Amino acid sequence: MLESVRDLSDASSVTDRDAVGQAMYDLVSELFPICRSITGDGVRQTLAILQRYIPLAISEVPTGTQVFDWTIPQEWNIRDAYIKNSRGDRIVDFRHSNLHVVNYSEPIHTTMSLDDLKPHLFSNSDQPALIPYRTSYYKRAWGFCLPHEQLLALADDQYEVCIDSTLADGNLTYAECFIPGSSEEEILFSCHVCHPSLCNDNLSGISVAAFLAREVASESRRYSYRFLFIPGTIGAITWLARNQALTSRVKHGLVLTCVGDVGGFHYKQSRRGNASIDRTMAHVLRHGAMAHEIRSFSPYGYDERQFCSPGFDLPVGCLMRSVWGEFPQYHTSADDLTFVRPQALAESLRTCVEVINVLEHDRMYRNLTPFCEPALGRRGLYAPAEGHGIGNKNLARLWVLNLSDGAHSLLDIAERSGMRFGDIHEAANDLALNGLLEEASH
Amino acid sequence: MLESVRDLSDASSVTDRDAVGQAMYDLVSELFPICRSITGDGVRQTLAILQRYIPLAISEVPTGTQVFDWTIPQEWNIRDAYIKNSRGDRIVDFRHSNLHVVNYSEPIHTTMSLDDLKPHLFSNSDQPALIPYRTSYYKRAWGFCLPHEQLLALADDQYEVCIDSTLADGNLTYAECFIPGSSEEEILFSCHVCHPSLCNDNLSGISVAAFLAREVASESRRYSYRFLFIPGTIGAITWLARNQALTSRVKHGLVLTCVGDVGGFHYKQSRRGNASIDRTMAHVLRHGAMAHEIRSFSPYGYDERQFCSPGFDLPVGCLMRSVWGEFPQYHTSADDLTFVRPQALAESLRTCVEVINVLEHDRMYRNLTPFCEPALGRRGLYAPAEGHGIGNKNLARLWVLNLSDGAHSLLDIAERSGMRFGDIHEAANDLALNGLLEEASH
Amino acid sequence: MLESVRDLSDASSVTDRDAVGQAMYDLVSELFPICRSITGDGVRQTLAILQRYIPLAISEVPTGTQVFDWTIPQEWNIRDAYIKNSRGDRIVDFRHSNLHVVNYSEPIHTTMSLDDLKPHLFSNSDQPALIPYRTSYYKRAWGFCLPHEQLLALADDQYEVCIDSTLADGNLTYAECFIPGSSEEEILFSCHVCHPSLCNDNLSGISVAAFLAREVASESRRYSYRFLFIPGTIGAITWLARNQALTSRVKHGLVLTCVGDVGGFHYKQSRRGNASIDRTMAHVLRHGAMAHEIRSFSPYGYDERQFCSPGFDLPVGCLMRSVWGEFPQYHTSADDLTFVRPQALAESLRTCVEVINVLEHDRMYRNLTPFCEPALGRRGLYAPAEGHGIGNKNLARLWVLNLSDGAHSLLDIAERSGMRFGDIHEAANDLALNGLLEEASH
Repeated sequence: MLESVRDLSDASSVTDRDAVGQAMYDLVSELFPICRSITGDGVRQTLAILQRYIPLAISEVPTGTQVFDWTIPQEWNIRDAYIKNSRGDRIVDFRHSNLHVVNYSEPIHTTMSLDDLKPHLFSNSDQPALIPYRTSYYKRAWGFCLPHEQLLALADDQYEVCIDSTLADGNLTYAECFIPGSSEEEILFSCHVCHPSLCNDNLSGISVAAFLAREVASESRRYSYRFLFIPGTIGAITWLARNQALTSRVKHGLVLTCVGDVGGFHYKQSRRGNASIDRTMAHVLRHGAMAHEIRSFSPYGYDERQFCSPGFDLPVGCLMRSVWGEFPQYHTSADDLTFVRPQALAESLRTCVEVINVLEHDRMYRNLTPFCEPALGRRGLYAPAEGHGIGNKNLARLWVLNLSDGAHSLLDIAERSGMRFGDIHEAANDLALNGLLEEASH
Repeated sequence: MLESVRDLSDASSVTDRDAVGQAMYDLVSELFPICRSITGDGVRQTLAILQRYIPLAISEVPTGTQVFDWTIPQEWNIRDAYIKNSRGDRIVDFRHSNLHVVNYSEPIHTTMSLDDLKPHLFSNSDQPALIPYRTSYYKRAWGFCLPHEQLLALADDQYEVCIDSTLADGNLTYAECFIPGSSEEEILFSCHVCHPSLCNDNLSGISVAAFLAREVASESRRYSYRFLFIPGTIGAITWLARNQALTSRVKHGLVLTCVGDVGGFHYKQSRRGNASIDRTMAHVLRHGAMAHEIRSFSPYGYDERQFCSPGFDLPVGCLMRSVWGEFPQYHTSADDLTFVRPQALAESLRTCVEVINVLEHDRMYRNLTPFCEPALGRRGLYAPAEGHGIGNKNLARLWVLNLSDGAHSLLDIAERSGMRFGDIHEAANDLALNGLLEEASH
Repeated sequence: MLESVRDLSDASSVTDRDAVGQAMYDLVSELFPICRSITGDGVRQTLAILQRYIPLAISEVPTGTQVFDWTIPQEWNIRDAYIKNSRGDRIVDFRHSNLHVVNYSEPIHTTMSLDDLKPHLFSNSDQPALIPYRTSYYKRAWGFCLPHEQLLALADDQYEVCIDSTLADGNLTYAECFIPGSSEEEILFSCHVCHPSLCNDNLSGISVAAFLAREVASESRRYSYRFLFIPGTIGAITWLARNQALTSRVKHGLVLTCVGDVGGFHYKQSRRGNASIDRTMAHVLRHGAMAHEIRSFSPYGYDERQFCSPGFDLPVGCLMRSVWGEFPQYHTSADDLTFVRPQALAESLRTCVEVINVLEHDRMYRNLTPFCEPALGRRGLYAPAEGHGIGNKNLARLWVLNLSDGAHSLLDIAERSGMRFGDIHEAANDLALNGLLEEASH
């Protein structure tokens, strides 16, 4: 699997940022029209497109399967939906936007008065021009979503209402891309694939995860990597129920969502709060150029809710740009292709790559000349510096030597010194090559 | 004992705040005229009045009894005291204010010149209109306190000086109200009863303690409660000396003093600084509507000095509104019935009740479906919320489920979530009733 | 040794601040003209002068000796150096300032054009009027330092260049002043003696260390004291290599440097960050009158780099006034006798003496009446205080009694109470004298 992924990654190197951002955006654009839900063909079509980018193992879990406290629901599929007025005009049309249908609506085809229809119409008076996004997964119901201004303008008429959907026994579908490394220990990335035409909230995470998988596969890695493309909540629960024994291998993880808009980064810590992934994200964001905010864990949000449930307590945080519920486009028709930007997608990918670089290279070393400093100059390891300063390279080497006592990892040293992990890592490499440092066994 | 207290508590429910505040103020008013000291009939009269409110076990400890490093002093009683000028006018009169006599003054009856009298006259030039409060417990002496402006105006005359007091072997008197709960573990409340006509500094604490005892007795409790009405310092030392073995049962405690003025709350932490009572007070005050300040422990103040001495190190803090020594009325005739307010007394009582509610209900639970979230909706435990938010009720349930791993108490969860203890407690109840949570053994 | 030092200390008591400051400044002045380096007669002359103040054990370590990863270099001595123009004028003259010669320059005597000379001339365009200080210890080279404005004005001429130096097998020289105390445990002070005519950067530390040694020797001490006068880096490495077994006795330590200017104090913590010396310095500076700043450890700076290398990890911090590299006079001819002040030297000495006083007297006591407060008044230990306050003396006694549970040292108590160590120490003495406290075994 690793080989085929490598082949795929040749085309667009991550070093070419503009091209990568555009390719990521193109993937979002291609996935945008599909009507996804927590089950059904929308997910399958989405995964089929992703398979052109990365190798995926696709699972189908039958309706009725017990997954922990939950049961896989019936599969939902939809072909068409509309409201026609008495003149036969489609005044609300699924073909125009799949947000018009309450996701998981049961089928209906009938004619009714406006009064009878109104309880099935949903709009948001605060955002009168936008179609809101609404679901009814676990309660059988049907409904339409429409702009509030359209709702107010509806004439007192007889309306033909049609939702050509099916709710029937079938499967829940999800996919994994597993990229083995030299260790069985895993880094997990997860994104949800259950939202219909919403760009930042689901497609951005899918695109970043897919391109990150390509980047990961482009070279040998210490860790194994697992990328999950799963329906929110029920998908995460299903995967955890079927892979419970495997979760002990997950050493670090990130849920990726809302990573395509131009807002600053928001990182939500894992339940542990001080896991390596939490410290690594803080380090990468602190040394990055963009505005960012670290938020502490809360048990509401995306699938970190399940990964961080107390029985698992996995070290999985959540990376976002703008935070769900806090940007006005959230869960509306305005979360569209104009809201996510190629450059923003590329920045999010780059941030994930930097996180991986820290995790891959973080380890403990032992200073082999721990009594006083070694004579760095004699070994050509003391680079001349301008003015009174010592210079970054020299300082990084002194920090690594000083703290490599078998109790401080390179990330610990980067944190204490205030220097970039990359500088500390390079210093450790130089010192190790010169026989001044050896890796400490854990 | 519990039964009779319950009967008493029927009349004025704490829910009727105005009525309760007035009743608390009435008690202060009734106690105000009595000349209390660390021993003597003033304390006995005070306790006799309190017995109309709550059941009290009264102890009399004889003069000369050794209590740790201290000895119970002789009992002091006073009937009258005055200074008369040569025309026979009582220019300083104990009947007008018992603050006029230095508390514990030995008896005297003689005539002397102003010059000879002056060393026995005490005033405060910074507050020239007020009578200061002064004591001489452990050094035999006599004296009068008077407004500085009156002192300055004293004519060069012969004065008849009379203090009709007795200092004689007797007893030190204190009282306890014990309300047994289902556990032997105790919550201790303590207030001093040794100050004469001073309202905030002693009568407010007495009133809050008495009404809190009534409230405690009004329902079954997990903890046993002990309310001490004791003379300051020597009374606390006496109680501790006679009940040393019992102190291991004290799991939480509060000294109540200066809780009747309208200032913001001040909580002085126990010596431990992070005891449950410290965290609980901080939680209650943080979520309350009033200004407040948390102060760290110091070994000076009220009887927390003794409870927190290193041999005991009890988790006992001190709740105040304005802090002794920091309000101008402190230890003067201005700490009178105009300085304490019914509403302020009721607020202090309410704060204590909230503290008790947290302590009573704080415990650890274990999530019985720890792997992923349980399906709350199926159980009717996922209440619909407005907008994108999850709603307080749902969020509290998710927090309780997420952190109920046997290592976090409900107060821990309230602190980490930033939610009110009451919401967290209610969520735990709902989840436990639905079989999703069970109490963890300690 | 202790005796002779005592004799020396009679002349100028530290209590006479002005006289002491002047004496310290006089020592700096006497040492200023000497051309010191990491080896050679400049160090020997410096130590010979110091021997008039304190007893010194002087070590000579031969060229070629291996000290950990380093080798003692050849000894450098210099008699004269100059650049003469074609008219025979000494336009750069070692006799005017020894900074003119790159320290450790190999000998040369030749005539050359300006173009050939220029690669050997060093100046600083940012400080055009000053001679910079430059060394070439471990790379054979020769050079002159001069003001940038002089360099720019040099005519196109033939120049006679002479450095009458020798680089030959010899010794590295350092000195120790050891003052035994009642314990083998040591407090270490270290300063470098390898800089030529630079006042703040080396002579100030030497002067403070010498006068501190006199002060230490003036009375019996609990700790033994060791003062090192050593060449920077190679000297510290040499001492550590030859005294490795002894380092376990070092319980506290300070590197003294740049302690003669009038800037605020800067204390750089030891690698441990929370060692007694770190807490003590913070306490002394916090209660001092002067501006100060605490900086965390970094592995660059003075000889704390070696003392805090991971194999030793000694609790050694670094006391400075202005910080090396941050004041414009640093490593230039402006770090001269006008830059250090008698008063500043005396303040630095006083700060060190206060640090010693804390370290000497910090210990744990046990309250012998731990249950409630003892009756202080009966023992004459409760001093009357003004107003409502308790007074510093009484409060310090209550703090010591409250926290003397065998787990808090006097410094712990001073920190928690916010009181001065001296007050806490005095309280402990008073209580111990009255049988209320006994020293706790560690």
